[in-house]
Amino acid sequence: MPGDTYQAVGSGAVTAGEATDTKDTATATGRPRKETVTSTAEIDSTIIHPGSVRINVKGAFIVDTPEPGTPANGNGTATTGGYETKDIRLPNHTAVVSHIAVDIGGSLAKLVYFSREAHSREPGGRLNFQSFETDRIDDCIEFMRHLKDKQLALNGSKPGELCVMATGGGSYKFYDRIRKQLGVDVLREDEMECLIIGLDFFITEIPREVFTYSETDPMHFAQPDANIYPYMLVNIGSGVSILKVSGPRTYERVGGTSLGGGTLWGLLSLLTPADNFDDMLDMAAQGDNTKVDMLVGDIYGTDYGKIGLKSTTIASSFGKVFRMKREAENDGEENGDVSHDDRERSSEQEAQPSHEHDTSSSHPNHPSSSRPTSSRSAHDAQRTRFTASDISRSLLYAISNNIGQIAYLQSQVHGLSHIYFGGSFIRGHPQTMNTLSYAIKFWSKGQKQAYFLRHEGYLGAVGAFLKRQPRNWGRRGSFEEGGEPALEDRLRGRNGNANDEAVIM
Amino acid sequence: MPGDTYQAVGSGAVTAGEATDTKDTATATGRPRKETVTSTAEIDSTIIHPGSVRINVKGAFIVDTPEPGTPANGNGTATTGGYETKDIRLPNHTAVVSHIAVDIGGSLAKLVYFSREAHSREPGGRLNFQSFETDRIDDCIEFMRHLKDKQLALNGSKPGELCVMATGGGSYKFYDRIRKQLGVDVLREDEMECLIIGLDFFITEIPREVFTYSETDPMHFAQPDANIYPYMLVNIGSGVSILKVSGPRTYERVGGTSLGGGTLWGLLSLLTPADNFDDMLDMAAQGDNTKVDMLVGDIYGTDYGKIGLKSTTIASSFGKVFRMKREAENDGEENGDVSHDDRERSSEQEAQPSHEHDTSSSHPNHPSSSRPTSSRSAHDAQRTRFTASDISRSLLYAISNNIGQIAYLQSQVHGLSHIYFGGSFIRGHPQTMNTLSYAIKFWSKGQKQAYFLRHEGYLGAVGAFLKRQPRNWGRRGSFEEGGEPALEDRLRGRNGNANDEAVIM
Repeated sequence: MPGDTYQAVGSGAVTAGEATDTKDTATATGRPRKETVTSTAEIDSTIIHPGSVRINVKGAFIVDTPEPGTPANGNGTATTGGYETKDIRLPNHTAVVSHIAVDIGGSLAKLVYFSREAHSREPGGRLNFQSFETDRIDDCIEFMRHLKDKQLALNGSKPGELCVMATGGGSYKFYDRIRKQLGVDVLREDEMECLIIGLDFFITEIPREVFTYSETDPMHFAQPDANIYPYMLVNIGSGVSILKVSGPRTYERVGGTSLGGGTLWGLLSLLTPADNFDDMLDMAAQGDNTKVDMLVGDIYGTDYGKIGLKSTTIASSFGKVFRMKREAENDGEENGDVSHDDRERSSEQEAQPSHEHDTSSSHPNHPSSSRPTSSRSAHDAQRTRFTASDISRSLLYAISNNIGQIAYLQSQVHGLSHIYFGGSFIRGHPQTMNTLSYAIKFWSKGQKQAYFLRHEGYLGAVGAFLKRQPRNWGRRGSFEEGGEPALEDRLRGRNGNANDEAVIM
Repeated sequence: MPGDTYQAVGSGAVTAGEATDTKDTATATGRPRKETVTSTAEIDSTIIHPGSVRINVKGAFIVDTPEPGTPANGNGTATTGGYETKDIRLPNHTAVVSHIAVDIGGSLAKLVYFSREAHSREPGGRLNFQSFETDRIDDCIEFMRHLKDKQLALNGSKPGELCVMATGGGSYKFYDRIRKQLGVDVLREDEMECLIIGLDFFITEIPREVFTYSETDPMHFAQPDANIYPYMLVNIGSGVSILKVSGPRTYERVGGTSLGGGTLWGLLSLLTPADNFDDMLDMAAQGDNTKVDMLVGDIYGTDYGKIGLKSTTIASSFGKVFRMKREAENDGEENGDVSHDDRERSSEQEAQPSHEHDTSSSHPNHPSSSRPTSSRSAHDAQRTRFTASDISRSLLYAISNNIGQIAYLQSQVHGLSHIYFGGSFIRGHPQTMNTLSYAIKFWSKGQKQAYFLRHEGYLGAVGAFLKRQPRNWGRRGSFEEGGEPALEDRLRGRNGNANDEAVIM
């Protein structure tokens, strides 16, 4: 909602514009310094070395409470509600930041920008996360323009000095558009590289970011091993990319699948009344997939013990629909070909087994390219069978299970035991994470685990944001400054630190 | 259609009823013997060894021309039209056969039975293939009853002497029903074992059965290696089972997916007017998936060369639908929430890239669990966007590609290079086979090939039929009787054999 957006930017103080080299102003303890202004020396040095901005990530943590006046998301549809959009506070970053980053995918554009805290005497600032629908990229550009204007107001730097780090397919498709509409420099970064830079950052620098999911322990935070490599990243957006990551900046796209978020959103927008992702997930949460899925028990009437298939195993997603649909049509008066009618008549006389589905209450009507749709659907509406929520649940299971299996198989082929799931498909949805986790556990016979992230949708955007860094930033930097214990210290330190209310306990 | 069925059975002579041991009456040359009657000795020996029937498969071949009066398929919906249902002639089998075999899956029941040729002075007979929809299992049972009655009329054997070999989940679910309604013995055989017994038979005993597919050479017949093991079978029915086969009767179900034929049929029955599988495939043949799928080019505006993704690669199946669907709704007068309207209004002012989809002409309307469906769909009908054929093409690609990828990954994990695709999903459909073939070639970088079968849907039924065999029947028998050359000789011999019009050249 542009209105909200402008207001938000108005109320959220944004860092002054010039890039500057702070030469890591953090103290070893990670305790905030009282310095809040940027020295002329810093500004000068920045003009000399514009590419060498460093984000001081020491002591970074996830903020539980939004800033007053923090914008609602760019739009309701793309909103990644809940904890996913929580800001990340960088208490020790005092340098000005003159770049923003955007990852423009097939369905969503994800934006990351740094801002000083409004009305705050504290030093540092926070990373803000915002998403827009890609087909409404102009809203996203408009939002960036206001970030830019705000920066001008704050530090008087010249328009040309805002730099947009862009990645994702849209950074190519909309390159000219962004440059023209904003009149700024757009630096494009490779999508896959940004994904792993972002993931490395979240794994190694952000406490309580990475977690495993189980129904009994839905957010069990993981602490990284001393060596996080090799690992696999399964990034689930409109489509799915699977990356093998062997080390810093060392990665390979080993596979993927076209059955991703775009497939779920697309099919459910045809099959249900939902017109946004969250409604679809809410419906899925209420649905019963066994109304539309064919279970092993539906075929065998029992388990298929010999090969270890339980009667509750899904044998065929949507496998019950075809038969029930034909029965529904047959109940109606519409004419098919003669043999079709014959068949239906004869089948009507039969006692059909396992008609538990007859209890379901509503079903999608279906289009006709050969008959008037309204009469056809009115007719079907009388004998509706499948609920939108049952369909949503089934499709969510089907796509999540499938991604889980392909991820597991790729991890076997490439010998990877750590599997991270990222991307806007997940959206912190319990059933999605549960299905992905279960698939990895099931196929690996408990040998492998699925890892999730609270900022799962922003790996690429954060990666692009952080590309304006010397290569030794972040964890690899932390190692140099004390290695593995640093992160745990921060975790422990914070858990008992009364001065740090913003930390999630 | 029961009517047709009875008539068909009436016109097709069926072998007399008693099981009998012919002690392999075939000659080494495979030339037919003139013997057409069953000796008392044979009948006696059968009564003593009822389990030791042998089907003489020497010289077996696929019959191009149906018998006069051969039944149309049990129903139009389940028909596996075209070459798939061609009979297999067994010119050297002279013994009576008193068993029939049925493989009852989640969607289809596949029946195999032996019959002497009607009005023919030739010895031998043929294997007949028939399929029914599982939810109309009584039609199938009725058909079996008439086979049984026919046998009685032919040889006066007692009702109890027809034996039904049954496999698939339905052999459990409908066990009592079949026994009760037919009053016969039902021997259940394991589904997976039957699949590989049937596949072994087709690979090793039936010339011109196994083939590879490519657009330039759509049916390139394969000749089996001396050793066909190990291989992988991907059986695609309602769901998908993937078997690793290491040797005769040595197999393991290594995986599968619930995204199979049942998913295609189920979703297309909701999204299109099609009410049978063949219509769905016909629609898919006419469709253009790029109207609904999001391609790499739609995201990047170009190739993503760095990771070798062409602009024509499908990034997200149905990935274009969500956005277009929302636009369609927005064109209408129906009210959403305010912010939704705001968003849509602002987006309407935008120049949206790549609107090639605006040319499409009809789209599925969608159910509403919260609004009157008829008005909603009437409203949508005015601004239809997606054609049933585009949707069918997209879903066929999505499911076939996905099965192909999982099959490839499983073959890598288990070190298998020969991948056979079976099951009623394929139905000899060029696009399906092309997609599966392409997926295997693409993922294996040309190192592996997909193999198909002309009786792909009947592996389990034939396996069950042949279970009444000594373990050394078939190819392994052929080896004993001359090994690998035997098959090639038969192929060569036939290709130049003017007396054998029935053979497909």
